[in-house]
Amino acid sequence: MALIGDKEFFKGVGDIKFEGAASDNPLAFKFYNPEQVVAGKTMRAHFKFAMAYWHTLCGNGGDPFGPGTKSFPWSVAKDPIEAARDKADAAFEFITKIGFDYYCFHDYDLVDEADSLAESEKRIQKTIAYLKEKQQASGVKLLWGTSNCFSNPRYMNGAASNPNFDVVARAGAQVKIALDATIALDGENYVFWGGREGYMSLLNTNMKLEQDNIGRFLNMAKDYACSQGFKGTFFIEPKPMEPTKHQYDFDAATSINTIREYGLENDFKLNIEVNHATLAQHTFQHELQVAANANMLGSIDANRGDYQNGWDTDQFPNNVMETTEAMLVFLKSGGLQGGGINFDAKTRRNSTDLEDIFIAHIGGADTFAKALLAADAIRQNSSYEELLTKRYASFNSGKGAEFKNGSLSLKDLYNYASENGEPEQISGKQELYECILNQYT
Amino acid sequence: MALIGDKEFFKGVGDIKFEGAASDNPLAFKFYNPEQVVAGKTMRAHFKFAMAYWHTLCGNGGDPFGPGTKSFPWSVAKDPIEAARDKADAAFEFITKIGFDYYCFHDYDLVDEADSLAESEKRIQKTIAYLKEKQQASGVKLLWGTSNCFSNPRYMNGAASNPNFDVVARAGAQVKIALDATIALDGENYVFWGGREGYMSLLNTNMKLEQDNIGRFLNMAKDYACSQGFKGTFFIEPKPMEPTKHQYDFDAATSINTIREYGLENDFKLNIEVNHATLAQHTFQHELQVAANANMLGSIDANRGDYQNGWDTDQFPNNVMETTEAMLVFLKSGGLQGGGINFDAKTRRNSTDLEDIFIAHIGGADTFAKALLAADAIRQNSSYEELLTKRYASFNSGKGAEFKNGSLSLKDLYNYASENGEPEQISGKQELYECILNQYT
Amino acid sequence: MALIGDKEFFKGVGDIKFEGAASDNPLAFKFYNPEQVVAGKTMRAHFKFAMAYWHTLCGNGGDPFGPGTKSFPWSVAKDPIEAARDKADAAFEFITKIGFDYYCFHDYDLVDEADSLAESEKRIQKTIAYLKEKQQASGVKLLWGTSNCFSNPRYMNGAASNPNFDVVARAGAQVKIALDATIALDGENYVFWGGREGYMSLLNTNMKLEQDNIGRFLNMAKDYACSQGFKGTFFIEPKPMEPTKHQYDFDAATSINTIREYGLENDFKLNIEVNHATLAQHTFQHELQVAANANMLGSIDANRGDYQNGWDTDQFPNNVMETTEAMLVFLKSGGLQGGGINFDAKTRRNSTDLEDIFIAHIGGADTFAKALLAADAIRQNSSYEELLTKRYASFNSGKGAEFKNGSLSLKDLYNYASENGEPEQISGKQELYECILNQYT
Amino acid sequence: MALIGDKEFFKGVGDIKFEGAASDNPLAFKFYNPEQVVAGKTMRAHFKFAMAYWHTLCGNGGDPFGPGTKSFPWSVAKDPIEAARDKADAAFEFITKIGFDYYCFHDYDLVDEADSLAESEKRIQKTIAYLKEKQQASGVKLLWGTSNCFSNPRYMNGAASNPNFDVVARAGAQVKIALDATIALDGENYVFWGGREGYMSLLNTNMKLEQDNIGRFLNMAKDYACSQGFKGTFFIEPKPMEPTKHQYDFDAATSINTIREYGLENDFKLNIEVNHATLAQHTFQHELQVAANANMLGSIDANRGDYQNGWDTDQFPNNVMETTEAMLVFLKSGGLQGGGINFDAKTRRNSTDLEDIFIAHIGGADTFAKALLAADAIRQNSSYEELLTKRYASFNSGKGAEFKNGSLSLKDLYNYASENGEPEQISGKQELYECILNQYT
Repeated sequence: MALIGDKEFFKGVGDIKFEGAASDNPLAFKFYNPEQVVAGKTMRAHFKFAMAYWHTLCGNGGDPFGPGTKSFPWSVAKDPIEAARDKADAAFEFITKIGFDYYCFHDYDLVDEADSLAESEKRIQKTIAYLKEKQQASGVKLLWGTSNCFSNPRYMNGAASNPNFDVVARAGAQVKIALDATIALDGENYVFWGGREGYMSLLNTNMKLEQDNIGRFLNMAKDYACSQGFKGTFFIEPKPMEPTKHQYDFDAATSINTIREYGLENDFKLNIEVNHATLAQHTFQHELQVAANANMLGSIDANRGDYQNGWDTDQFPNNVMETTEAMLVFLKSGGLQGGGINFDAKTRRNSTDLEDIFIAHIGGADTFAKALLAADAIRQNSSYEELLTKRYASFNSGKGAEFKNGSLSLKDLYNYASENGEPEQISGKQELYECILNQYT
Repeated sequence: MALIGDKEFFKGVGDIKFEGAASDNPLAFKFYNPEQVVAGKTMRAHFKFAMAYWHTLCGNGGDPFGPGTKSFPWSVAKDPIEAARDKADAAFEFITKIGFDYYCFHDYDLVDEADSLAESEKRIQKTIAYLKEKQQASGVKLLWGTSNCFSNPRYMNGAASNPNFDVVARAGAQVKIALDATIALDGENYVFWGGREGYMSLLNTNMKLEQDNIGRFLNMAKDYACSQGFKGTFFIEPKPMEPTKHQYDFDAATSINTIREYGLENDFKLNIEVNHATLAQHTFQHELQVAANANMLGSIDANRGDYQNGWDTDQFPNNVMETTEAMLVFLKSGGLQGGGINFDAKTRRNSTDLEDIFIAHIGGADTFAKALLAADAIRQNSSYEELLTKRYASFNSGKGAEFKNGSLSLKDLYNYASENGEPEQISGKQELYECILNQYT
Repeated sequence: MALIGDKEFFKGVGDIKFEGAASDNPLAFKFYNPEQVVAGKTMRAHFKFAMAYWHTLCGNGGDPFGPGTKSFPWSVAKDPIEAARDKADAAFEFITKIGFDYYCFHDYDLVDEADSLAESEKRIQKTIAYLKEKQQASGVKLLWGTSNCFSNPRYMNGAASNPNFDVVARAGAQVKIALDATIALDGENYVFWGGREGYMSLLNTNMKLEQDNIGRFLNMAKDYACSQGFKGTFFIEPKPMEPTKHQYDFDAATSINTIREYGLENDFKLNIEVNHATLAQHTFQHELQVAANANMLGSIDANRGDYQNGWDTDQFPNNVMETTEAMLVFLKSGGLQGGGINFDAKTRRNSTDLEDIFIAHIGGADTFAKALLAADAIRQNSSYEELLTKRYASFNSGKGAEFKNGSLSLKDLYNYASENGEPEQISGKQELYECILNQYT
Repeated sequence: MALIGDKEFFKGVGDIKFEGAASDNPLAFKFYNPEQVVAGKTMRAHFKFAMAYWHTLCGNGGDPFGPGTKSFPWSVAKDPIEAARDKADAAFEFITKIGFDYYCFHDYDLVDEADSLAESEKRIQKTIAYLKEKQQASGVKLLWGTSNCFSNPRYMNGAASNPNFDVVARAGAQVKIALDATIALDGENYVFWGGREGYMSLLNTNMKLEQDNIGRFLNMAKDYACSQGFKGTFFIEPKPMEPTKHQYDFDAATSINTIREYGLENDFKLNIEVNHATLAQHTFQHELQVAANANMLGSIDANRGDYQNGWDTDQFPNNVMETTEAMLVFLKSGGLQGGGINFDAKTRRNSTDLEDIFIAHIGGADTFAKALLAADAIRQNSSYEELLTKRYASFNSGKGAEFKNGSLSLKDLYNYASENGEPEQISGKQELYECILNQYT
């Protein structure tokens, strides 16, 4: 099953199998059973789990208070193309050993950026060709591509929102190349996360111009990709802050507002990340629901934040209750529109064993599996859905239905209320819902 | 000047005068000089300061850990109409003594709600008649009215978003009466703050239906008011949470999204509150800018929060730097569209002297005055505006201008960037902007 | 089993039984099986669950944006003593139906405060006499008493920390009466939570004098109680803020520092509340561990906060993972020193059915039971303890042991390190620990 | 005045002079006038401003989302000793041009760490010798030294708190060398900031052992330094989190508790950092007051955080109101015990002009100067101190004084309160205090 390159990088780790809840093998799934059918679909089909190239293969553990701690055996070669191939080998070895079907990347995760745009483009093209082979050999697919327009110092004042047009143009060029690469690899979607699209200080910022420029930029990107035959979906990934003081795509509602303002609603959906949700003072499930309400629930970046730490900790998912609430929204909304579940999560700086990467992904997949099973059981076996339906029943008939259909005026409400007297008090029964949740997780 | 009723409530406090920065009189303005012209307008005209009925006359100091501490002399009468008149007398005595031109209210700030809708309506009508007289006698005007659809237990599960249609209708009736009252008093605007429009738990909530119902409700209210000759503006007041876990009008961007989704953009603008901004992890000036960008900067609820306390402390403004940054946005955006600056702020629970209410409002007005002067000086005397203009100059000519005009494609950007080489590094000079701010405040 | 007074208040609710995880009876325990032995003790003995008088019997659902929603049938009588007896009947009916062994109170939870100190004391004495009978009839015991020195307006500037000595003295008198009551009821402990012991503004505060006064006050209280034969433990309950801007007993470490500074370490321990921990940016388990390290883990106030809301939401526990981490600390520390687990939690404002109070407590007890079982299984069946022991093994022998014994100097470390070379890199394996946690909860 | 090395690094920037509030020269002080006497001392003597080696000379602008943006001309040489000399030249050029008297460093700010401990020590000794010359030539002094035991990957699991004794010993060796260097340079103080002394997860942590090890370690370091003739003060610098999830020295109160627990109170004081205070949900002035109350206000790390961003932004001070409140505590406490005001602040990642470093420090110094002047004026010219004294007057005579002297019992309080009746209600007058603050800043 495993697609191993010239050299095996994760020695001692074989194919990860489902062994069930009683297994004490840290290198086995306890709950994620890919072929198990839940709510009419296999777990594999529900989740479309993806490996994130950046954390898994490039995340060396550096943080603001110290350099990287991890020396990856695939990051040894001096020649950038050779290094890119080693990394690709490691990527596909990992993906096939763990049994996922997808991966995601930023352009310069694949290969180091060169000194010039032209040389960078060449490097990407060469790497893409190699990845294509690996995809064919393994059946693994590209869930989405994206462009890293935030790390390079040239983007320190923004990319599409940069006050200097030269930088905006440079970002445009980079996005074009990344779109070409995504299309070449049959990528199913394309993501925009605007890491520097925001401001460090409102004092030196023309917010309106910057946001309008982003709107123009996204339209250009979309037009170009469509002209090149791209059939996938574009995702905006909201994040409220970090690295900037304030990111323009603050949260789902803000991003939907942007999508509406710039006429992108036919092509764009959202990629919701757990830790970005919590940094914006929302729950993960809230953000999913907001996206689903707008018919824009496209994809998920799975991880978790720490509620006591105000930065993006990008830890692996392990909160089954939170994830179960998310899976309730997920199941009710009919899943994701085009996307999948990408582990945008990194092992801790002090998790320096190579096997830790496997353990972490296993834990993440198990969390989602456990949560999906719980959410399905709640929906099938408990009184949950019935309670919920009953709670809103007054809008299904009589004046309530007329209201819902838009056929009442404020005066009608006044007349109805005048006759009706004080409404009956009806408990919200929140604790009962919570007990049901607790019983099944 | 002061309009005193049968009884003087604020004995020992006379008309509040401007005495300048050197005054040691706690009952005098040090910076707010109503007739002083700044940036082409008097301070009075810029600010349109308003007294908030609820905090100033009804806020008895109760909090979740104890009942009220303040016994107001105008809240003694047993008869509700008599009590309402006393309160109105106190209101106009306060407003005229402090020299403001406006006030704001919720329906049941004016007079206690009765047991039935019909009786409540009568009480409001009688009180309105009395207020009309006071307005005429004093020249004081109504900045905006609103309806309190959050305190009464019947709204515990929401008003327009209530799962029970009977409660939705009851809220509609109440809003109709409040609109009638606002129109009768020549109110310049009408505000919606949805104190219970949100959820306590997503588990028991159909968010989509609830939000759609709000959309319908707002349209009905607008249609009714317009049919009654209302010419003012409607404001939505964003708040992220409290009393609910999650309010639907989370922040400015979310509220603008709602306004767009339900087709309300021609009639609705925003009322931005400082403490609501900070609870949503935004600065006050950020929220003003977001509203201004959408041409929806309608009004301001002036107060301040405590950055270490996660609830709505509604303290009086005293942060000149924060307010100066806000006044920079304010001046650049051409001020408020229809609204004014309403002191939605309360003296602390342990500020039990009646004069504390005056001292607090004086401090608030002085903070805005000091900030307006500073912002104007920054714009007139420093290099601030020049620095900012220069920062975005690349969009004024050449390819940058073409980009701004929408005449470039992604490929054009690619070609331009390919020829152009690495963009020049340009400092954001944030510290310089901050030093200028500091020098002038 | 149930001890019902003249009138049954919770009609339709019988004795709550353990029915196991498959039960769909909302009025049954799914996981809390009182007599089940875990880690050598029954669940009942581990937890010593207590009902909190204030939330359960007095919490009418009022919040800063609206009055109470709940009309309790035991709060009808006009006569304060009759009302107190009804409330006591309701209390014991609830406790005995749900099968707890303990309760906790503030003085004026039991009976309304009167106009004078002397009359208040009489009321308390009468109520105490009645409670004594109920205790004897039921076997239910008093886990701890405390005095509410924060609600009455007289404490608006603090109780023991009040700038006015007259108020300090009044608080002293009240605490004396509450201590007498606790002793009379064989209360096992006595709690200090200083709801107004902090500041609203540092500007008007002499923090040093206020804290020294608290130190003196606590010593006086302790001396008095001991002189009256009290054998129980005193607990300080940390909380970081609310209602004040800053509470002096911010968190466990701060409170331990206070205990040390004022020489109270022989008599005082801590009462750790979940929501207070999270408001202080700590996890519940962190605060438990800090208390345990100082040998001061006395008691627990069980509830949960909302990570997105910055006030004390006091929701019922339902987070099994968080509670399992807490139970790991609990089991390792040998449980609580003197105290128990008191449900300092309230049903939501819109949970207005009387049965909601039962459902909520059942959910809370089940959460702790599930967590205790999980923590015990982790300790018994997984590699968790072994991993942890191994991680610190270097301090058990050789130079590490010498260091631990205090027999090395800095120069010794220098010499050792000079010879030793670069230390081996050892993974922290956090994800593995998290997977184990997840597997067992 | 300026001490320039072989090469001038900050070309175009001359000696920074005081030019007063009306100056529009960005490279001049507007408020910081070093020789101006305020409250009996020159500003220079009050503040003892220090340059922080790490941010000012080593901070290249890297963040978790991108590498450094700044290429410093003093960081060009390949040879580590030559590079260290260039950096020292730049340091002293900066300090002497801006006219500060002090600097602070971590060991490996001065010179890059080598592969072995022995070689690293040699490098430090050589650099120290060069710094000694620069100190003599310029009169600039070392405010404090410290050791960076957090960046090197070997400390990823902690330094003194590492689960592996070998790492603890290595940290000990490093601290010994840093202490030797500090003593050699006549450093006035020595700081401990435990960047990795905390935990990433409580699950894999033996907190008690780790904290006890820190206690032992600090005692060893102190004993060693004293044996080598060090006469200065040791400072602990509290920080609540980042890079770890939870730092053991969470805040001032926690650190004082640690100091007490391990018997370090005669030698250790606190170094309070603004941004660390706010991350711990405290104000800067709160932390200063807590330290001052314990007689441990040693030194200040001046910067500011962003209240909406939950990480250490380390921005330069520019909040005059916050700093004025701090200066009120500062002046009342008699200033700092041994330390000074060190600008632990960095220019933004996108502030890439070399002059930005000067502008930022000028802004910081001006903020403190403006605040000192305001605080002094408040104390001298307003009713502030009188109001405050009056507020606590009840403890100066009669029973209040007896209470303060410890001669009353709880029963005495009871008796006094019984006779005394309901205490008078006294307003806290917070808004009045705030207006005074506002008037003078």
